[in-house]
Amino acid sequence: MSQTTRAVKSASLSPRGSLEILSQQEVAKVRTTGQNGMHELFRRCALAILNTGSDVDNAKTLLEAYPNFDIELEQQDRGIKLIVKNAPAEAFVDDDMIASTREMLFSALRDIVYSQSGIDTHVENLKSGKDITEYVFRFLRNARAFAPGREPNLVVCWGGHSINNREYKYTKNVGHELGLRGMNICTGCGPGAMKGPMKGAIIAHAKQRVQGGRYLGVTEPGIIAAEAPNPIVNELVIMPDIEKRLEAFVRVGHGIVIFPGGAGTAEELLYILGILLHPENVSIPFPLILTGPKESENYFQELHEFINTTLGFEAQQKYKIIIDNPAQVAREMAQGLHDVREFRIKMADAFHFNWLLTIDKAFQQPFEPSHENMAKLELSHKLPVHTLAANLRRAFSGIVAGNVKEQGIRTIEEKGPFEINGDPRIMEPLDRLLQAFVEQHRMKLPGSKYEPCYRLKK
Amino acid sequence: MSQTTRAVKSASLSPRGSLEILSQQEVAKVRTTGQNGMHELFRRCALAILNTGSDVDNAKTLLEAYPNFDIELEQQDRGIKLIVKNAPAEAFVDDDMIASTREMLFSALRDIVYSQSGIDTHVENLKSGKDITEYVFRFLRNARAFAPGREPNLVVCWGGHSINNREYKYTKNVGHELGLRGMNICTGCGPGAMKGPMKGAIIAHAKQRVQGGRYLGVTEPGIIAAEAPNPIVNELVIMPDIEKRLEAFVRVGHGIVIFPGGAGTAEELLYILGILLHPENVSIPFPLILTGPKESENYFQELHEFINTTLGFEAQQKYKIIIDNPAQVAREMAQGLHDVREFRIKMADAFHFNWLLTIDKAFQQPFEPSHENMAKLELSHKLPVHTLAANLRRAFSGIVAGNVKEQGIRTIEEKGPFEINGDPRIMEPLDRLLQAFVEQHRMKLPGSKYEPCYRLKK
Amino acid sequence: MSQTTRAVKSASLSPRGSLEILSQQEVAKVRTTGQNGMHELFRRCALAILNTGSDVDNAKTLLEAYPNFDIELEQQDRGIKLIVKNAPAEAFVDDDMIASTREMLFSALRDIVYSQSGIDTHVENLKSGKDITEYVFRFLRNARAFAPGREPNLVVCWGGHSINNREYKYTKNVGHELGLRGMNICTGCGPGAMKGPMKGAIIAHAKQRVQGGRYLGVTEPGIIAAEAPNPIVNELVIMPDIEKRLEAFVRVGHGIVIFPGGAGTAEELLYILGILLHPENVSIPFPLILTGPKESENYFQELHEFINTTLGFEAQQKYKIIIDNPAQVAREMAQGLHDVREFRIKMADAFHFNWLLTIDKAFQQPFEPSHENMAKLELSHKLPVHTLAANLRRAFSGIVAGNVKEQGIRTIEEKGPFEINGDPRIMEPLDRLLQAFVEQHRMKLPGSKYEPCYRLKK
Amino acid sequence: MSQTTRAVKSASLSPRGSLEILSQQEVAKVRTTGQNGMHELFRRCALAILNTGSDVDNAKTLLEAYPNFDIELEQQDRGIKLIVKNAPAEAFVDDDMIASTREMLFSALRDIVYSQSGIDTHVENLKSGKDITEYVFRFLRNARAFAPGREPNLVVCWGGHSINNREYKYTKNVGHELGLRGMNICTGCGPGAMKGPMKGAIIAHAKQRVQGGRYLGVTEPGIIAAEAPNPIVNELVIMPDIEKRLEAFVRVGHGIVIFPGGAGTAEELLYILGILLHPENVSIPFPLILTGPKESENYFQELHEFINTTLGFEAQQKYKIIIDNPAQVAREMAQGLHDVREFRIKMADAFHFNWLLTIDKAFQQPFEPSHENMAKLELSHKLPVHTLAANLRRAFSGIVAGNVKEQGIRTIEEKGPFEINGDPRIMEPLDRLLQAFVEQHRMKLPGSKYEPCYRLKK
Repeated sequence: MSQTTRAVKSASLSPRGSLEILSQQEVAKVRTTGQNGMHELFRRCALAILNTGSDVDNAKTLLEAYPNFDIELEQQDRGIKLIVKNAPAEAFVDDDMIASTREMLFSALRDIVYSQSGIDTHVENLKSGKDITEYVFRFLRNARAFAPGREPNLVVCWGGHSINNREYKYTKNVGHELGLRGMNICTGCGPGAMKGPMKGAIIAHAKQRVQGGRYLGVTEPGIIAAEAPNPIVNELVIMPDIEKRLEAFVRVGHGIVIFPGGAGTAEELLYILGILLHPENVSIPFPLILTGPKESENYFQELHEFINTTLGFEAQQKYKIIIDNPAQVAREMAQGLHDVREFRIKMADAFHFNWLLTIDKAFQQPFEPSHENMAKLELSHKLPVHTLAANLRRAFSGIVAGNVKEQGIRTIEEKGPFEINGDPRIMEPLDRLLQAFVEQHRMKLPGSKYEPCYRLKK
Repeated sequence: MSQTTRAVKSASLSPRGSLEILSQQEVAKVRTTGQNGMHELFRRCALAILNTGSDVDNAKTLLEAYPNFDIELEQQDRGIKLIVKNAPAEAFVDDDMIASTREMLFSALRDIVYSQSGIDTHVENLKSGKDITEYVFRFLRNARAFAPGREPNLVVCWGGHSINNREYKYTKNVGHELGLRGMNICTGCGPGAMKGPMKGAIIAHAKQRVQGGRYLGVTEPGIIAAEAPNPIVNELVIMPDIEKRLEAFVRVGHGIVIFPGGAGTAEELLYILGILLHPENVSIPFPLILTGPKESENYFQELHEFINTTLGFEAQQKYKIIIDNPAQVAREMAQGLHDVREFRIKMADAFHFNWLLTIDKAFQQPFEPSHENMAKLELSHKLPVHTLAANLRRAFSGIVAGNVKEQGIRTIEEKGPFEINGDPRIMEPLDRLLQAFVEQHRMKLPGSKYEPCYRLKK
Repeated sequence: MSQTTRAVKSASLSPRGSLEILSQQEVAKVRTTGQNGMHELFRRCALAILNTGSDVDNAKTLLEAYPNFDIELEQQDRGIKLIVKNAPAEAFVDDDMIASTREMLFSALRDIVYSQSGIDTHVENLKSGKDITEYVFRFLRNARAFAPGREPNLVVCWGGHSINNREYKYTKNVGHELGLRGMNICTGCGPGAMKGPMKGAIIAHAKQRVQGGRYLGVTEPGIIAAEAPNPIVNELVIMPDIEKRLEAFVRVGHGIVIFPGGAGTAEELLYILGILLHPENVSIPFPLILTGPKESENYFQELHEFINTTLGFEAQQKYKIIIDNPAQVAREMAQGLHDVREFRIKMADAFHFNWLLTIDKAFQQPFEPSHENMAKLELSHKLPVHTLAANLRRAFSGIVAGNVKEQGIRTIEEKGPFEINGDPRIMEPLDRLLQAFVEQHRMKLPGSKYEPCYRLKK
Repeated sequence: MSQTTRAVKSASLSPRGSLEILSQQEVAKVRTTGQNGMHELFRRCALAILNTGSDVDNAKTLLEAYPNFDIELEQQDRGIKLIVKNAPAEAFVDDDMIASTREMLFSALRDIVYSQSGIDTHVENLKSGKDITEYVFRFLRNARAFAPGREPNLVVCWGGHSINNREYKYTKNVGHELGLRGMNICTGCGPGAMKGPMKGAIIAHAKQRVQGGRYLGVTEPGIIAAEAPNPIVNELVIMPDIEKRLEAFVRVGHGIVIFPGGAGTAEELLYILGILLHPENVSIPFPLILTGPKESENYFQELHEFINTTLGFEAQQKYKIIIDNPAQVAREMAQGLHDVREFRIKMADAFHFNWLLTIDKAFQQPFEPSHENMAKLELSHKLPVHTLAANLRRAFSGIVAGNVKEQGIRTIEEKGPFEINGDPRIMEPLDRLLQAFVEQHRMKLPGSKYEPCYRLKK
């Protein structure tokens, strides 16, 4: 993949339709390059957004493919302007950038400015779990992810970016059935199970004449390059790190549907199970449905068995598996959201943010997937079950990093695969599950042979 | 297909979101059954609309499948109400009718009331061509198909309801490229080439954040059962007859794209060619593009050859054939619309209605496809070319009726196929073309064996 | 008042913000001058609209003041255009016509086209009372005076165009209190009691953040010159004659407030009383409140006494007089509208049009105020009370014509005052009432000495 | 004025129509009473807002009149709720709070939360002038006072809250003429010259069918009680102190009109003159018009003379005085705004915030009007002219505090009038000007005898 084969275009973009208004200080910060400037971070996110629609799930490859790409900010008469140079030509129709892409560039700018320019409490100062939650709330508020008066109808859809065609169609069908019942979709932004539900829902919303349907994409700087926002996303939020992104999903979504996927999907399932297993969350309704077409039945059986042997029977009661029945998924989710609504009203909790959910600090603290940290992970049945879930979540998080994130890929290139140790009664099922993911091409987009970035020591 | 296998539902519908307000006189007329009442007409159109999404292209079959279906109108406190009984269950999500379907029922009501209740000049009184055009205008205005301030960007897409999967995907791609460039779509309402472009455009409009995208379906009571409006249609107009429907297309559309299709598509092509060949229309710009995927190339070669041998070289200059290049179709159409815009401004003609186009009365007068009328059609090279086009158009119109319209099917069942006579130099290419349509399954939806409803005598 | 002192401006107006779309036939008709053309009628209405804000209540004077005024219609690329020549300069801000004035010109065009171009049943063919009501309905529908989903909250405010400053302020206060409670205002368009309530309501609607507040002006070609629409009016309807205008008021309004006024106001009061006294209307709720400031108490006592001696005690029970208490007026009207709402729901009648009200043909047939017809009016206690009300209504209608309408003024100039005969027990209170109107300057705007246009013969 | 005579009402308010979404931390802070809580501040602002429409310009009196008034915040299922107890009954229509009042309570909450809860840099940390400007920008952005795409058309209207009826009508007329030309209005929120222009503009906007007209009120906690937001205000911002309020006016407004007024108006005039006289601002266009009716001519002559003797000829060139010609004021302002627009485009400055204006720190630093600080003010011709303007501004600011602010009134009650010293060539014209303000009842609302809160020592 050489630069010469990639068509590029340049453009000057006004924030038409965007709501972003920056101060001169903020503009100056974004323009700063060098060690602490936001410029490089913005450049990477912008390139990922501009790469929309292309199938690349390797951040490093992407950056190398467009070495001359750059983006700059100018203060202008009616606000600000973005100057884009040598951007992927696919982001344009004739010579105009696609409106959703342009909008997302400004969303990225908004979130990077917010996270970096000290508008709010600095990330490093977030000591307590409460502080982190407050920060997640303010971040989402700044991104206008809340709006007063909305009913609790936002369904988070998790699942792989690399799924087969049948599974993809199935995710569309589920999105369609959710959309027909007025539900909105939140995903992690990328292709596959993150795009299908939105595509189904947008058609269903058109049929139902739903105005203002939401297709909310929540990502983070490390993953965005591998999972570029699909162009249906009409609200994009780039959370500062993976843990805050996961917290955003569970606090802003009212229910979760999980489709087949790989390590990332397993990470997400462990995250939500770990939270729902927390003793303080026992009575909080949270609809969680695992679903796929007939041919994915085995996949879910394996996953179900993995949960059983690692987290146990109680964890299995937190979700429901529905095979090959999109309408039933939608109907059960609708019923679940109804219960959420009643509960929030009863507890006087907000519709737009799940304040009541207790999230253990183990799930909030950023996990650095270094070789050392991966090797140190305690995976043992001696731990309380929600702590074991937290550690398993970290293990999968590290694998995702090694698979698709720029920093992770470089680390693996340098030092070889991560080593993961643990109780054999955990390591064996883990091994089987990862093996299955590899065989089913769930770790990487088809076409590239998968080289495991981990080694399990039992 | 027996009633027992068909799930049905009943409902009471308020015109939520609809703009229709009827007088007591109008309500009374719709409720009248019997010879001259509108009730039976409304019932048939309503059933077709409710059948949305199912693949039936035979009006008679459809009516027989739902013998207990009925629809009634009630005057209510906030306007009117429709009571639907034993309607196809597919029109509902759980127990609520899909919003677009509900809207379309009220659109049907609006158009039937307009055409039947003497709000305006009675159809039978329309003597001159000018009167008919005035009527078409008022009909469309009443249906709110015009809105001030809109740019000329409405692209009519014609093509078959029975096309193969590759062709269908291609129509979606063309719609997507048109939509990316801000163009709106008008079709004849049904599946296949009438649905694909809308589906492509709606996704493109979402990407481009186009508000108020138009997916205008124009149909008539005879065809609606065979080509039920697809649910993306957000403006539905049921013109009183096939000729007014065709006039609506060419006066309200700003350009035309023709995809592969069968007899109906040939009818449409002959209609527009007949008009553009009229001496008074020579200088009027009217972008007309025939397009399809690589595998449809033969189809267009045959059609092109048929035009050559019947209407001649001049007729071939009225259109452009583009094979397998959706983006080019969109770019050329955009350029064509630009020329239309300039021309309308220069001539001080309206953007919303092509007043300047001369339509020969031969194209305006309803053609009754009886055995007698079909046999009488003069198909000869002695006629002026635009008159020959008119007669060929009628021949295809009769074939469409025999294929899919309730009245036509009954007539053929009773009296056998239509006989069509004419100049061998016309009949032979006609025979070849029809043969090709049959072989390519363009006459009827796949699954049903096609019995020709015509016999050519050379 | 000579032409030289009147500043004039000319302009070309596009229907920006207007919804009017005309056919070529309709445009041609409006452009026709001569006996049956609409042009002269349109010219007169247009001049009245353009005179907004000036205090002239004499149609003849107005026309003479702008002898060179003209208005023409042109078909244009984006619809139609109005060319205005030598129009009153007050209608402009710098060189742009005030938007509401421009809009009203297009509303006038819409109504004149509708009433004159045979879109609908010709007025002369309206034989039965039902036909007339149907026509009023269709006229209002064409003018978009109905909209689905609106609550019954339209309060008709009647009262004089020539009222004193205290009364004017009082009408503003009542409008303000109505507006604070979400009610909308419908009046006869002119200054005085027709402007005050709108002005009060628009401020109240702003305070209450009411979107889409309605300030509906209903007028007719004969009165519009004398009572030019005030610029707050955001929906203007020009009904074809005085009787249809009155019917529009009572069918589209949900309640009525009557402020002090002269002959026109008396006409209106007699009209609504005549209807409410009709035996078939006995059980229909219709809130009717007469109100004014403390200093108008005598006025209402006189009117109340006049009703007593002419129509009797029963008629007095149809209204309530509230002195000097705007908030109470609004509260009682709100309660009345609540009853109207309940009744309409119970009777399954529309919210937007009072179909159930029976209006005697005597109130629907246009009354030509000639000397002969005025002299022939039977004013006798032998008549049923609602028939007497009808005849008294006609007597006042004639006096209004003689006071302010162009045709009426010319007739009086030629032939002297109308003679009105009748039962002395009616003529004496009538005389007293008219005398009081003259003394209180309610017949004409202050500044001009009032010459009675009638002579009562007892 | 005793509590017994004041009607009160209580209510629970949902933020219907409001955009405010608070975090649990923020809610907790507002609910905290005691030394550092926001509760008392919010209670005072809320009472001032609820007092809308009553004529009280004394914060202390107001608080004493409603001793039992309280307001509390509750977290609720769909967000937050305000519980209001014993509030002025005038804020209600029947039992519902007027929508604009309700909205403003939530605006007050938003601004108090922003200024007090550490969302942004703490006020005490604002060291440099640039920091203060950044804070003003972020404060206004948080209050949604900016919106992308708006043209520069916001006219700040300054002038007295206590003006006579002729002057009040004149301010309405100027607002009307500005509104007819599409300009929006920003004022200090209170009655008199702060209400009139909004009232004129809202009617003009209705006439011109302007959607989204802005009536922006900018106030601060100390002044809001004396100048309660009039109910036309549809955007309310409560800046943290008087200096930030003044900076907000000049950075967010595109031009300024000054009507007659008292000490507050003089303060404002000196503020803007001090800025425009700053050497770095020489080339920045800033339309500044002083205007009033014929009878205010003397007032402006006095003011003009005072400027001449204190700040000199150059300062006089920064404004234009227009007597008795509202249309000319509007035309010149429109021209001025046009120049501002051109300049901003040329300099690539934002339309929504005047970044280029240099404001000396002397104008940004909060001035505490203690007896000591007032006595220390240097008023001498030896100072640079913009520094003298700054000190004169402070002198007037102190007088305003002593006249109407709660803290100021208490201080004067305790320690007697402020003493102000200075150069006799400044003190004498100052004395004359203040004398004139007293005689013209510009210091306090009529009805109350004015006791000067200052003593000039020459």
